[in-house]
Amino acid sequence: MSRVACIGAGTVGRAWAVVFARAGYDVALNDAIAGEVERTAIPGARRTLELLAENGLLSEDVETVVARIRPAGSIAEAVTDVVFVQESVREDVAVKREVFSEIAAHAPADTILASSTSAIPGSDFLTHFAHPERALVVHPVNPPSLIPLVELCGTGTTSPETIAAARQLMTEAGMRPIVLKKEIDGFILNRLQFTLVAEALHLVGEGYCTPEDIDAVLTYGLALRWASIGPFEVAHLNAPDGLQGFVNRLGPMMRQLGAAARTDYDWTEEQIASAHAQLAERIPLDTIADRQAWRDQQILALRQLKQQALG
Amino acid sequence: MSRVACIGAGTVGRAWAVVFARAGYDVALNDAIAGEVERTAIPGARRTLELLAENGLLSEDVETVVARIRPAGSIAEAVTDVVFVQESVREDVAVKREVFSEIAAHAPADTILASSTSAIPGSDFLTHFAHPERALVVHPVNPPSLIPLVELCGTGTTSPETIAAARQLMTEAGMRPIVLKKEIDGFILNRLQFTLVAEALHLVGEGYCTPEDIDAVLTYGLALRWASIGPFEVAHLNAPDGLQGFVNRLGPMMRQLGAAARTDYDWTEEQIASAHAQLAERIPLDTIADRQAWRDQQILALRQLKQQALG
Repeated sequence: MSRVACIGAGTVGRAWAVVFARAGYDVALNDAIAGEVERTAIPGARRTLELLAENGLLSEDVETVVARIRPAGSIAEAVTDVVFVQESVREDVAVKREVFSEIAAHAPADTILASSTSAIPGSDFLTHFAHPERALVVHPVNPPSLIPLVELCGTGTTSPETIAAARQLMTEAGMRPIVLKKEIDGFILNRLQFTLVAEALHLVGEGYCTPEDIDAVLTYGLALRWASIGPFEVAHLNAPDGLQGFVNRLGPMMRQLGAAARTDYDWTEEQIASAHAQLAERIPLDTIADRQAWRDQQILALRQLKQQALG
Repeated sequence: MSRVACIGAGTVGRAWAVVFARAGYDVALNDAIAGEVERTAIPGARRTLELLAENGLLSEDVETVVARIRPAGSIAEAVTDVVFVQESVREDVAVKREVFSEIAAHAPADTILASSTSAIPGSDFLTHFAHPERALVVHPVNPPSLIPLVELCGTGTTSPETIAAARQLMTEAGMRPIVLKKEIDGFILNRLQFTLVAEALHLVGEGYCTPEDIDAVLTYGLALRWASIGPFEVAHLNAPDGLQGFVNRLGPMMRQLGAAARTDYDWTEEQIASAHAQLAERIPLDTIADRQAWRDQQILALRQLKQQALG
């Protein structure tokens, strides 16, 4: 089977190792901290695979899959003879530039080089080495082992063939790729997420409702639709004449609420402290780990549901 | 059992009749069009109840529940001797004022009077009759028979007792109420929804991605979390030190993406026509009814999943 390399074995990197290993790839996993892969990353990957297996989302047994992940002592060792490299190191442009120099120097010339960055434009650190047309951003949602969406974004130098091949590889690995046509801060998912969060902070900050109310609006309202149909399809299905009919009737309201949103709302430290206190009463800090496990179970149950619906 | 009245028997009004009937209330259902209740509203309510029953979300048999819904020939007849009135007539302030004059004249003085309005502030049409302290907005998500969130909003004249009683009645009827502390255009759900939609129209309009990409970002990304935990809890669980720790680290990014959002984006008719054409290729207009039925099945399956998780 083909081999891939994951560079950086933190939360994101080890989740990527799970994604590739369950898709059948041999995975070379490297981290700057010696021993980190053996000590925490592979055990963490095993726990994630156990969780997937318990939820009916793994077609092989856990040990077969985890055995495909092996530690690599250096970047050079990791990227030798691989078809794909996924970098998930610290969000620091100097560090990423150095890591990609090393990757590009040792990987085959036609290996696809991908970065998990969420905060730095790929064009800042993916063009200074030989064959930059093979490099792009493949931005996951954390953790990619549970959430399939990935955002592909070229640098301007990236070749169409690289983007097409990365898209196909991600699809075959069970992910759901979208391709951005040009770079933008935050890509698509975080822009949508933090645009909504910004308006939520405005509504809470100005005393219209509480953080708990906002969360209920999503979990008992909007997300019941968005879990199966996105916002464009919601509108398309809300009228016998589709999106056009929806906008014909409700366009003025859409423009009005868009213009009324205050996503540049200057929230204060006191407002954050108050929201934190309300959340910590609902979910005390010492229960966060339990609640994270519950969240992951919920996500997996929903993925099962979606698989059944599509299958 | 107590009696309630639903005034207006369109899509929203008949869904409300289902909500109250399945909670055990006798429901008087009235519509301005003579015969509409018998001809389309009660058959429609029966179909919704059948759907709920098929998905394990109805504890009694369909005919027992549907028998609680009876046509009322006039508003006066409908509201006699009821504890709660839910109005869902046309979104026209003059019509609503007239309907509420009639309701208030015939309902007992301590009956709670609620409006489903989504577009008009309650203070524009809920204060001109006797005992306006008993009136408020109870804004559902369409259809309330499938989606439990409701937004309660007083007019400034509404008494705290009215809001508390409406909240309790909604909770007992299986809904998930939030209470707005003051009026705002669009309430909370539509503000959050159309803030996100506005930024989505900006991203599509400026050529970063397609409507289908936006929908995938929700259905394969954001909504996998939001279906079980809202955006404040997402942040709270993303750091061992909760929301405060999340904002300490990512506050600058949150402010930056909020400020960069262009929710006042002046989308064009051509952009809507293009988005419509892409959607209509994915979901042709003559398949919308089938896809609506699929959407409703997905919503119900997710509600079942959430009930199991909570129970």
